[in-house]
Amino acid sequence: MTHCGAEGRLSAAAMRRVREAVSHVINFYKADLRSIRFTLYEHLKVDRLFELERYAHLNREECDAVIDQCYRFVCEVIGPLNPLGDQLGCQFENGVVRTPPGFREAWQKLFELGFPTFTMPLEVDGLGGPHAVGVILQELQSGANTAFTMYPELTRGAADLIAHFGLPDQRQMFLPPMLQGRFSGTMCLSEPQAGSDVGMAKTRATPLGGNLYRIQGTKCWISSGDHDLAENIVHLVLARIDGAPSGTKGLSLFIVPKIWVEPDGSLGEPNDVVTASIEHKMGIRASATAVLNFGESGKCRGILVGGEPHMGIKQMFRMMNGARIAVGVQGLAIASTAYLNALQYARQRLQGSSVRHFKDPDAPRVPILEHSDVRRMLLEMKAKVEGMRTLAVKLAWHMDMALALEKTDPGRSAYHLGQVDLLTPLIKAYCSDQAFRITELAIQTYGGAGYVRDNPVEQYCRDAKIFSIYEGTNHIQALDLVARKLHQHGGENFRNFLHELKDFCGQYASLRGLGAEVRLLREAVQSLEEAALGLMDFFLSGKVDQVTLVANWFLESMAEVAIAHLLLDAARVAEERQMQATDSDSEPSATDSDFYQGKIMAAKFFAQRCLPLTRARTIMLLSPDRSALDIPDAGFSTEF
Amino acid sequence: MTHCGAEGRLSAAAMRRVREAVSHVINFYKADLRSIRFTLYEHLKVDRLFELERYAHLNREECDAVIDQCYRFVCEVIGPLNPLGDQLGCQFENGVVRTPPGFREAWQKLFELGFPTFTMPLEVDGLGGPHAVGVILQELQSGANTAFTMYPELTRGAADLIAHFGLPDQRQMFLPPMLQGRFSGTMCLSEPQAGSDVGMAKTRATPLGGNLYRIQGTKCWISSGDHDLAENIVHLVLARIDGAPSGTKGLSLFIVPKIWVEPDGSLGEPNDVVTASIEHKMGIRASATAVLNFGESGKCRGILVGGEPHMGIKQMFRMMNGARIAVGVQGLAIASTAYLNALQYARQRLQGSSVRHFKDPDAPRVPILEHSDVRRMLLEMKAKVEGMRTLAVKLAWHMDMALALEKTDPGRSAYHLGQVDLLTPLIKAYCSDQAFRITELAIQTYGGAGYVRDNPVEQYCRDAKIFSIYEGTNHIQALDLVARKLHQHGGENFRNFLHELKDFCGQYASLRGLGAEVRLLREAVQSLEEAALGLMDFFLSGKVDQVTLVANWFLESMAEVAIAHLLLDAARVAEERQMQATDSDSEPSATDSDFYQGKIMAAKFFAQRCLPLTRARTIMLLSPDRSALDIPDAGFSTEF
Repeated sequence: MTHCGAEGRLSAAAMRRVREAVSHVINFYKADLRSIRFTLYEHLKVDRLFELERYAHLNREECDAVIDQCYRFVCEVIGPLNPLGDQLGCQFENGVVRTPPGFREAWQKLFELGFPTFTMPLEVDGLGGPHAVGVILQELQSGANTAFTMYPELTRGAADLIAHFGLPDQRQMFLPPMLQGRFSGTMCLSEPQAGSDVGMAKTRATPLGGNLYRIQGTKCWISSGDHDLAENIVHLVLARIDGAPSGTKGLSLFIVPKIWVEPDGSLGEPNDVVTASIEHKMGIRASATAVLNFGESGKCRGILVGGEPHMGIKQMFRMMNGARIAVGVQGLAIASTAYLNALQYARQRLQGSSVRHFKDPDAPRVPILEHSDVRRMLLEMKAKVEGMRTLAVKLAWHMDMALALEKTDPGRSAYHLGQVDLLTPLIKAYCSDQAFRITELAIQTYGGAGYVRDNPVEQYCRDAKIFSIYEGTNHIQALDLVARKLHQHGGENFRNFLHELKDFCGQYASLRGLGAEVRLLREAVQSLEEAALGLMDFFLSGKVDQVTLVANWFLESMAEVAIAHLLLDAARVAEERQMQATDSDSEPSATDSDFYQGKIMAAKFFAQRCLPLTRARTIMLLSPDRSALDIPDAGFSTEF
Repeated sequence: MTHCGAEGRLSAAAMRRVREAVSHVINFYKADLRSIRFTLYEHLKVDRLFELERYAHLNREECDAVIDQCYRFVCEVIGPLNPLGDQLGCQFENGVVRTPPGFREAWQKLFELGFPTFTMPLEVDGLGGPHAVGVILQELQSGANTAFTMYPELTRGAADLIAHFGLPDQRQMFLPPMLQGRFSGTMCLSEPQAGSDVGMAKTRATPLGGNLYRIQGTKCWISSGDHDLAENIVHLVLARIDGAPSGTKGLSLFIVPKIWVEPDGSLGEPNDVVTASIEHKMGIRASATAVLNFGESGKCRGILVGGEPHMGIKQMFRMMNGARIAVGVQGLAIASTAYLNALQYARQRLQGSSVRHFKDPDAPRVPILEHSDVRRMLLEMKAKVEGMRTLAVKLAWHMDMALALEKTDPGRSAYHLGQVDLLTPLIKAYCSDQAFRITELAIQTYGGAGYVRDNPVEQYCRDAKIFSIYEGTNHIQALDLVARKLHQHGGENFRNFLHELKDFCGQYASLRGLGAEVRLLREAVQSLEEAALGLMDFFLSGKVDQVTLVANWFLESMAEVAIAHLLLDAARVAEERQMQATDSDSEPSATDSDFYQGKIMAAKFFAQRCLPLTRARTIMLLSPDRSALDIPDAGFSTEF
């Protein structure tokens, strides 16, 4: 008998006491909707999507209403469940997983409101909304309650996979209940011996005729692998059909329902999927991470997705790419609410006097927001959060453009799809690493108050640590970038990326008030290009180990260059808006002016205080130094 | 009724189940004694201390025996209590704090073995051992069980303060029971409105005649503030005598026993010190962090330390400086065991094939230690851990030299004391920040396995987060460095520090195999010196806010330059030892060779892969950029 999160099973009395203790908990989640709308409409102008046929059934007002409604929902319903879920975790007893109190009701409400189907195509009864807006809905949900949101997010991803690759009868059988929240979904890749090394999966699939197979094997680290939120769970399981080749190319993908679904859609017998245990995790403790045994009694049946064998890894990659973006958005989401909570604390907490009166013990106390060091931390958080959000929305917008132009302009559609491919590893790895950093800064802003459960930031920090690991560790992302994405289509995606940045630098190197920063970006772009060429040299001279050595650093540098560009571009827009306001009859409001100044200062800070380090790292990664490769294994320690 | 760490009070049955669940727990703690001995003897040659009168009663063999004995003790006794303590935390009920099972026995055993008195002077029945060895004993204890070790460490610090500033009768009454572990100690500075801003303390002391005062006030964040390990707790409380000036200069220090001690040393009545609550923390959950109410019933009495009023902050600073070094050592300690656990995992975990066969799915699986990225993470951890340890031992050695030469050579003694002063903020802030980074790398090395309680690294990460906050946040350390320590004695301490580094660079710029790295250090030293001058310019031109803005960065750069120097110096010694072995008749053993190569590669890695970033940061901190200072407050967010 094991337990997820909770320290031993709580007695009914202890449970009651805990619930009482947290009943006063208010929602900690915060989102800056004004800043979000700036990114969507003033900066990236995603409302132009509504001029395209694919999105013409929607408009900005409707999307804004969905965002507002979603924010209300997360603040009222899932936000207050976040600390509670963390404290209680999931319970596992007698083979059954129970989610924390309130999760079932929240799940039902969520599907009633329809957020999970916002970006699903109209053809499958989705709302057909743009991903650029969908990514904000993801942010709001993941930020308010990361652990809870993993259940619907995996369901959405699994439904999308079935919608895309499933045969008509598979779609018909599984999609409606998944989109209604009656069934949930998972992705089952990892096995004890096959983590990053997916191709080592041993789970077997034995033909039973047609698209039916007998499934046998153990999967682990399965998020949402078992729970009590839905009537049924649709596992998407990678397995090897008897006789298939080794490695990833021999894997096929199966729909393996927890409870068998009869042709009429009714639930049949349990499908021999047994939950062996759930993990005791550092964070996201209300998300059940299960070890699942498929076919222990030889009675587990799976349905081959799309009826095509050996396509498993390709099919799964559709879900995985979505999940990678979603993990990046999780990082952004936690970073953002951590920032805003730290900001609020810094406005309220009085401590110390102004630096101007530091020798006078009787000088008035000031909010810590006045202290340089606190401002430094907050502006770093702000710049990174807003930069990451802009990158996420831009990636999603590329996705929308690719879809919208799919039929009318395949060339431009391919361009946008190429940028999605290129940016996916950046968003996954950079936002996940930075989420941890930013929660660290948030804790530091609070001081001791950040280290205790009374405030949300220590949970944010614990929750965020998993992002750099799951859905492909950040090194897997870096390998994907340097070994695949940089070279895709003969390097065209990367050239297009650089081209956009160089264009910007060329156009704005003398921009009023931001020229120096644009020139810093130009230098960083140049270093990045040199680094990419240097990596190529390593490859060509057979020094592949030297490429893998520095791949993470390259990814980090590229992400920071991308973000610096977007922040500066946002600052340029903010400058324009301020000037327009000044030119117009009405004076700009002080609030507006402060808002736009915030955008400009965030860009300046990132360019002046982060980019120089980015550039040094970019140059450093071309060093021929081989110390980490050449050190004898025993040189790490002769004792262990 | 509140609880520390535990999720609600555990029922007896739940407690039994948790104890069963952890009864199989083995000790996770690991220390590399070979590497520790290298630092002590081969590199820093601390055994030369035994030639000085103050340490002549000891020798290397005896000190080694103490280290060995301490390592055995921590692995057998307090190491296995570490995960258990984390899970159960402290319990607080009916005003009483209970530490986790096993802590009392461990406490008694620890004081029987005498480690807490190792560095205490012979005059007070200590062992009079050098701090250079004492710091290693601290490392072993803090690494094996950070939370547990806070109780004896605070006791040691409080005893040291009383030994130094106490009147003879104060020493006689409190020292022996503290050194025997019958009484424990605390430091009571913080109050709800006075955290970093100690001078705002409101706790009052009203004269009762002689050195007795009535104490009234609330102290919070008191580590080891209440527990069941000792018969009595000796609180050292900062309070303001009625009519004293405001600010830190009006504070006095009082011995406030939890239970009054009669003149014959027997315990009298409780002294009106009430534990109001204990905190629910992210980590170090077995260390009770208490809110204490002194004199709620007007019956709390305190004894003025040394009989001198208004000397409180000066007296407390002795304990605080010790505590700051101890926090740095906590960081080193957790970083070291996190590194060694990650290393062991990397040797055992098979995943993926060699990069040479990356296209062959049937290539043999290899330990992840073979992957470049894992080697990169491990070598960064190793270099930083060993660099931090060398810095800690060197600081302690300066302390020993200062003490040893106090009477015979006041000039050189002052030199060494100056280096202690200068290095204290570095060790506190840098080691605490890096501990968090290194545990992050350790988790990443484990992958998903690092995120769950089955392995120790997630606890290490949670425990380590407090280090950057308590005993003066890292920004307080940075202010101490840039506003005080750099200028102490007309800047002589800092000049001496630079002089030693420049000497080294001058002497070894052409060192066989390490010349390029020494030259990288030379450039970094030069940038550091320029940065220090630049900070001075900011000061002189009235831009104090610009100094406080970048103070943390300056500290980080200075610490990294110091560490690069020590790592390169260690590598130089390792080269020499290898050459000596080659020159001698006997071939060097393969193990020896690997060990010394490890030292050389760690230095190369740090110089080639970290110093370039250090230097970029050092240069960047002189940027005139004022974005973080000039952003309007509302610019951070107009919504919150």
